[in-house]
Amino acid sequence: MKVAILGGDGFCGWPTVLHLSDAGHELHVIDNLSRRWIDTELGVQSLTPMDSIQERCRIWRAETGRVIHFHLLDLAEEFERLKAWLGEHRPDAIVHLAEQRAAPYSMRSDRHKVYTVRNNVNATHNLLAALVETGLDAHLVHLGTMGVYGYSSVGAPIPEGYLDVEIDTPAGKRSQEILYPTRPGSVYHMTKSLDQILFQFYAQNDGLRITDLHQGIVWGTHTEQTARHEQLVNRFDYDGDYGTVLNRFLIQAAIGHPLTVHGTGGQTRAFIHIRDSVRCIELALGDPPASGERVKIFNQMTETHRVRDLAELVARLTGARVAMLPNPRKEAAENDLVVKNDQFLALGLAPTTLEDGLLEEVVEVARRYAHRIDRTRVPALSAWTRDLASKLERDPEGRALRSVS
Amino acid sequence: MKVAILGGDGFCGWPTVLHLSDAGHELHVIDNLSRRWIDTELGVQSLTPMDSIQERCRIWRAETGRVIHFHLLDLAEEFERLKAWLGEHRPDAIVHLAEQRAAPYSMRSDRHKVYTVRNNVNATHNLLAALVETGLDAHLVHLGTMGVYGYSSVGAPIPEGYLDVEIDTPAGKRSQEILYPTRPGSVYHMTKSLDQILFQFYAQNDGLRITDLHQGIVWGTHTEQTARHEQLVNRFDYDGDYGTVLNRFLIQAAIGHPLTVHGTGGQTRAFIHIRDSVRCIELALGDPPASGERVKIFNQMTETHRVRDLAELVARLTGARVAMLPNPRKEAAENDLVVKNDQFLALGLAPTTLEDGLLEEVVEVARRYAHRIDRTRVPALSAWTRDLASKLERDPEGRALRSVS
Ligand SMILES: NC(=O)c1ccc[n+]([C@@H]2O[C@H](COP(=O)([O-])OP(=O)(O)OC[C@H]3O[C@@H](n4cnc5c(N)ncnc54)[C@H](O)[C@@H]3O)[C@@H](O)[C@H]2O)c1
Ligand SMILES: NC(=O)c1ccc[n+]([C@@H]2O[C@H](COP(=O)([O-])OP(=O)(O)OC[C@H]3O[C@@H](n4cnc5c(N)ncnc54)[C@H](O)[C@@H]3O)[C@@H](O)[C@H]2O)c1
Repeated sequence: MKVAILGGDGFCGWPTVLHLSDAGHELHVIDNLSRRWIDTELGVQSLTPMDSIQERCRIWRAETGRVIHFHLLDLAEEFERLKAWLGEHRPDAIVHLAEQRAAPYSMRSDRHKVYTVRNNVNATHNLLAALVETGLDAHLVHLGTMGVYGYSSVGAPIPEGYLDVEIDTPAGKRSQEILYPTRPGSVYHMTKSLDQILFQFYAQNDGLRITDLHQGIVWGTHTEQTARHEQLVNRFDYDGDYGTVLNRFLIQAAIGHPLTVHGTGGQTRAFIHIRDSVRCIELALGDPPASGERVKIFNQMTETHRVRDLAELVARLTGARVAMLPNPRKEAAENDLVVKNDQFLALGLAPTTLEDGLLEEVVEVARRYAHRIDRTRVPALSAWTRDLASKLERDPEGRALRSVS
Repeated sequence: MKVAILGGDGFCGWPTVLHLSDAGHELHVIDNLSRRWIDTELGVQSLTPMDSIQERCRIWRAETGRVIHFHLLDLAEEFERLKAWLGEHRPDAIVHLAEQRAAPYSMRSDRHKVYTVRNNVNATHNLLAALVETGLDAHLVHLGTMGVYGYSSVGAPIPEGYLDVEIDTPAGKRSQEILYPTRPGSVYHMTKSLDQILFQFYAQNDGLRITDLHQGIVWGTHTEQTARHEQLVNRFDYDGDYGTVLNRFLIQAAIGHPLTVHGTGGQTRAFIHIRDSVRCIELALGDPPASGERVKIFNQMTETHRVRDLAELVARLTGARVAMLPNPRKEAAENDLVVKNDQFLALGLAPTTLEDGLLEEVVEVARRYAHRIDRTRVPALSAWTRDLASKLERDPEGRALRSVS
């Protein structure tokens, strides 16, 4: 199968590329390398030393004999080149991971909000319009997030994408299936909610075949393929914008900093290991909807945890202590989260749990690369509103330094 | 009150500007004049001879002594200038009409799809981000469309924006209010569905005060103010992209062409006269939500009609005959449409009905300017899908000429 991975240079993308290449597919990476530019903008870098995409592809070829093609292309700003590329290469399947994916980055400033909306909405819509125009019947697998639903809702289990509602009509109550209503909590999450409407329209109007994977927080670094050579290593983000809560706990533990929990730590989130994420994408690719069918939506996660329980788990493995800080995000202090993921379990997913896999991260990643940690980059500093921003301490250039109470 | 009308050079915008100026408010028009450029692109023009915006403002001033300020600015592409303008002028209220608003134009080609999404989503989002950044507490009134709901649904009355649904939770059934689910039927309508999510987020996260008017098809040309001088006349679109179904019937009747009904004519649509549209905007401006309140959503329409009944009404007034053609749109052949508009009726709206006002359009507009009609521009030609496009006859340059069966 010929597969294009849009955003194939990123954290989820690179291991997906290697996994599918290893399985014998023909792989094409499309990426504008914007994420590397954002590293430069923020003055941060991956904990793991990350080679250029060209070098990574060269090493993979040297190790395995398999070719990965790289194409520098901006999905959001180069519609005509995208269309020409699709028309020429005609991939069988497309995995779309090419979006700005950090909620705190999307809330940093007006410029970052505007960039995130432009980049994500135009990338997704350009892709859809180009698929229609080239008449390509490729299966499109997109990575969305369970965060579109917001975490403050009524405690209902998050279903796999749809909800049956009753509507009053002159002829009595009628049942109708709708997209599960969203309540995104950041500009980033909002763009995923917008994506859903784009997908619904193009599946319905043009018969595009689309699967939308609502993913939890991805953790873990190594997959079977990235572990084959030091220079194939995946990226590991730990800064306040791109580092997920778990990565930041790991890094704090490695440098002897207390694990900082924002708010009560009662926020519950869903998690999945990168090895399972990659495997889920492969499973989804093997199970496309038919043309004319509604968008297939899967919840891509394997377990849920409260943030304070995560902190305690890391503390237990490392001996770190836990510190509570005020919350720069506008979100519910505590929430339940019950997620249905029956579809992937039915397709045969056998998850790596945090309980089992976290020690590997502590030892093989956080401690191993601890000398590369930049301590000033660990706190999370984007404030969700002007009110919350005014509660952050600032350095002389106006950059937020850390939360104060 | 200082009011900014974004898109104030357009069909709904211009009479709104004059109406509010006449009522004594300070009026600012912001427009990039893209709609005039689209006239040029399509090689069409308003039936009524339309002066430049600068000349229109000059004449209004000569007639009434009142100043209207015009600012050439692209909302979607000039975020920094927009922010600077808002920060400097600090309007009390903003009416946002600045979007590409024709469904057929949005479906013409991939380029038109991409343009419509970029223009509309970025215009709305830039505005919201700039309001937050400048800390402006202006009331934002946006023009949306009832078309976001699609017209093929279960025949439920269209409520004013929200729906109560029951959700299963571990603690039993819980009721939750959600945005009424959308099913947009064109890329244009889809952008209005995206707008709703942007509004919901910014009202919730930043306390912006927003009213979204879900408007029906606007008909009629003259308002009390545009009628004061020949050169204040409003635009009248009758081409296949921008001309609404009613305008096209009027023009067909004026040139002795049969009234072309696409499909069965069983499509039911909602209508409102431009005089009532302008008055509704004024009523909405006077009734803002509080900060922190959910987005106020009104249905802005006064009556519903089946397309074939409209054709018969025009035929009765003019003696024209009715012809049935195949439908280039992907839509339900027949639909019921019951719309709630209790909120505007409660605020004191007294509508002009089609039955009462249509003769004025026939005599004062269609017949009066009949010599300016370009007959080649009357058919509606954008096809919704590749299948439907292949059923359109084409000229040697590949432009669709007219629907064939
Ligand atoms: N990492 C997670 O925990 C997580 C969780 C849920 C969902 N997701 C989703 O999975 C996808 C991938 O996430 P990730 O963690 O790998 O992010 P990442 O930032 O590491 O990778 C995204 C890649 O897309 C590229 N990109 C961005 N905009 C582009 C454009 N306009 N044109 C071409 N390339 C562009 C970037 O350069 C980067 O290489 C995202 O859509 C994200 O929202 C990730
Ligand atoms: N006319 C109708 O029947 C109708 C029905 C329902 C809703 N609406 C909505 O009402 C609004 C106004 O409709 P209209 O009929 O007056 O349309 P119009 O095309 O006549 O006017 C829109 C105006 O906005 C301007 N504009 C567009 N993009 C802009 C940008 N990026 N920056 C600055 N200016 C920009 C155009 O130049 C034009 O003057 C639209 O949002 C439309 O969707 C109209």
